[in-house]
Amino acid sequence: MSELRQDVATKEWVILAPERGKRPQQKPKSKPAKGTDIPGWDSACPFCPGNEAETPDEIFRIPSPSDPSTWAVRVVPNRFAALTPTGDTTRTEEGPFFRKMGGYGIHEVIIDSPSHNISMALMDYEHIEKILITYQQRYNALKENPQIRHIIIFKNSGWAAGTSLAHPHSQLVATPIMAPYYHRKFDVAHDYYADLGRCLFCDQIAWDLKIGSRVVADTDGFIVVHPYASHTPYETWIFPKEHCASFGLFPPSKLNELARVVKDVLFCLRSGLDDPAYNMVIDSTTTVDENDPYYHWHIRVLPRLSTIAGFEIGSGISISTALPEETATRMRQIAKSCPDDVCIAFQDTK
Amino acid sequence: MSELRQDVATKEWVILAPERGKRPQQKPKSKPAKGTDIPGWDSACPFCPGNEAETPDEIFRIPSPSDPSTWAVRVVPNRFAALTPTGDTTRTEEGPFFRKMGGYGIHEVIIDSPSHNISMALMDYEHIEKILITYQQRYNALKENPQIRHIIIFKNSGWAAGTSLAHPHSQLVATPIMAPYYHRKFDVAHDYYADLGRCLFCDQIAWDLKIGSRVVADTDGFIVVHPYASHTPYETWIFPKEHCASFGLFPPSKLNELARVVKDVLFCLRSGLDDPAYNMVIDSTTTVDENDPYYHWHIRVLPRLSTIAGFEIGSGISISTALPEETATRMRQIAKSCPDDVCIAFQDTK
Repeated sequence: MSELRQDVATKEWVILAPERGKRPQQKPKSKPAKGTDIPGWDSACPFCPGNEAETPDEIFRIPSPSDPSTWAVRVVPNRFAALTPTGDTTRTEEGPFFRKMGGYGIHEVIIDSPSHNISMALMDYEHIEKILITYQQRYNALKENPQIRHIIIFKNSGWAAGTSLAHPHSQLVATPIMAPYYHRKFDVAHDYYADLGRCLFCDQIAWDLKIGSRVVADTDGFIVVHPYASHTPYETWIFPKEHCASFGLFPPSKLNELARVVKDVLFCLRSGLDDPAYNMVIDSTTTVDENDPYYHWHIRVLPRLSTIAGFEIGSGISISTALPEETATRMRQIAKSCPDDVCIAFQDTK
Repeated sequence: MSELRQDVATKEWVILAPERGKRPQQKPKSKPAKGTDIPGWDSACPFCPGNEAETPDEIFRIPSPSDPSTWAVRVVPNRFAALTPTGDTTRTEEGPFFRKMGGYGIHEVIIDSPSHNISMALMDYEHIEKILITYQQRYNALKENPQIRHIIIFKNSGWAAGTSLAHPHSQLVATPIMAPYYHRKFDVAHDYYADLGRCLFCDQIAWDLKIGSRVVADTDGFIVVHPYASHTPYETWIFPKEHCASFGLFPPSKLNELARVVKDVLFCLRSGLDDPAYNMVIDSTTTVDENDPYYHWHIRVLPRLSTIAGFEIGSGISISTALPEETATRMRQIAKSCPDDVCIAFQDTK
């Protein structure tokens, strides 16, 4: 059983999940040559078709369009969950300042594809739309749970990004607390709204579009930017242009355009940075603030080109070795040189 | 030239240092067998004796006790500095919300030892004291600079901890801003003091000593604990028992006891976790608050047993796979089984 404990020094909650230490690690001891070693199907992989019995009971699936008896995307509980639905969210105090609660929460795995070795950057637009539909369906199903406060959907791609299994997958963790990183952004956005009566992110989108130098792409519904204070080279944010605090409330009819944008971002990063490891995160408001006027959901993609080290851990200050104006220019160049059948969203950039 | 830019969404400052991208990376492509590949001296290493001309001009040294014409510890400017003393700290605004300043600061390398391959965990107590004296001398020299607000001293040991050079070394970065991680701790400690008129950390030390289960060692001047909400398994904090906000004001006469404690912590982690990569950070107040009654300097040692992944980046919530009560017990067992000439500070534990 896991626990949530509050860091006395920062008031931020930490998950202590001893069971999770037992999860298998497929990471090879030495770095294999790129693209040579991962087969399209692996008999030992619990996420590969035919091995469905190896996972806990399926929660959701989108059938394969070519054979509806098989699946295109599949969701299962994480077998080595950081949080589980059996924990008790009553907070208990230990002595004068220690606080904890049971490790209540939901931890799901979204199996992105039946293929064991396809990168999301190389999937077709239609398939990525199915993954995004899955993300949103699970988000909206879990937000109905009154004990859930925050839902984090993320993807670790590559060993350097912290994945422990090769088969392409995403994850969803629903927590009974407001996530501390979001809390910091919420405070700033809330103050901005209190001062000016406007959404900080809407204003920032308008400014970035006016300046242009950090804009990677500008489609009907989305703006892709390298943020002014990028924490890592090629950090990429995807904003819906229309104000919307929660990913759960984003119009499903626009997920096909989002799929094109996500694919194009990942394809350009793969082309420009030699297939980097990356993390992708959907950054949304809490489940109880879905209609708020000050937050604005977005996707962050962070290539993992360097290791987070003692300075970052000690200070909380990131060091990036590139300027976003230069990396955004480079991304636009990469998009221009793509084959005709990819970077459609980007090449249509206004 | 680097820049400091403020993250619009969190108000935290980020260093953008394009020059730093050019620093050499000695990390081997595949993982070498442990202990077999690193020689005691490397002709190509800029930190090895005989290659002193390869570094920028020396700032500080402690001579070798056996041959005072050579050095035991040496400090030089970082050739690929994240911040440099030529930047301008005037803040400039770009549009309605973007703020930046020149990348002013000091970035030094402390070359821990003339030996190319000795781990700090295996150095003798006297040598570690020399390293700590060096840390404090540089801290106190730089805090006199009125443009400096915060001084972070840290060590990355092992590739997984983000080091880029094999030769054992530490680093110091002095910034013109308050570090955001410290800012969060400062706010909590300040509120606690405002409510109760006492130092949060002094109270926590007293409580941990009373409970005992998270205490790894208890020496005359220090307590070593695995914190209640550990962010990573075997995260270890070393607190001076006596209240002191700043590492710079810690009595130099007690650095020899601290050296014993630091060595014993690193030795036990090395023994118990098969020589893990780790980060060590000295967490001190700002240069302008050295005498404050609410902060309490300490050392954090974080073994890097897993990769920081999308969930941590997306949420700010750490997941640790061990309970600190269990890892503290294990550390006490490891200390008990050490050879007689190490873990002296720990075996004397009260």
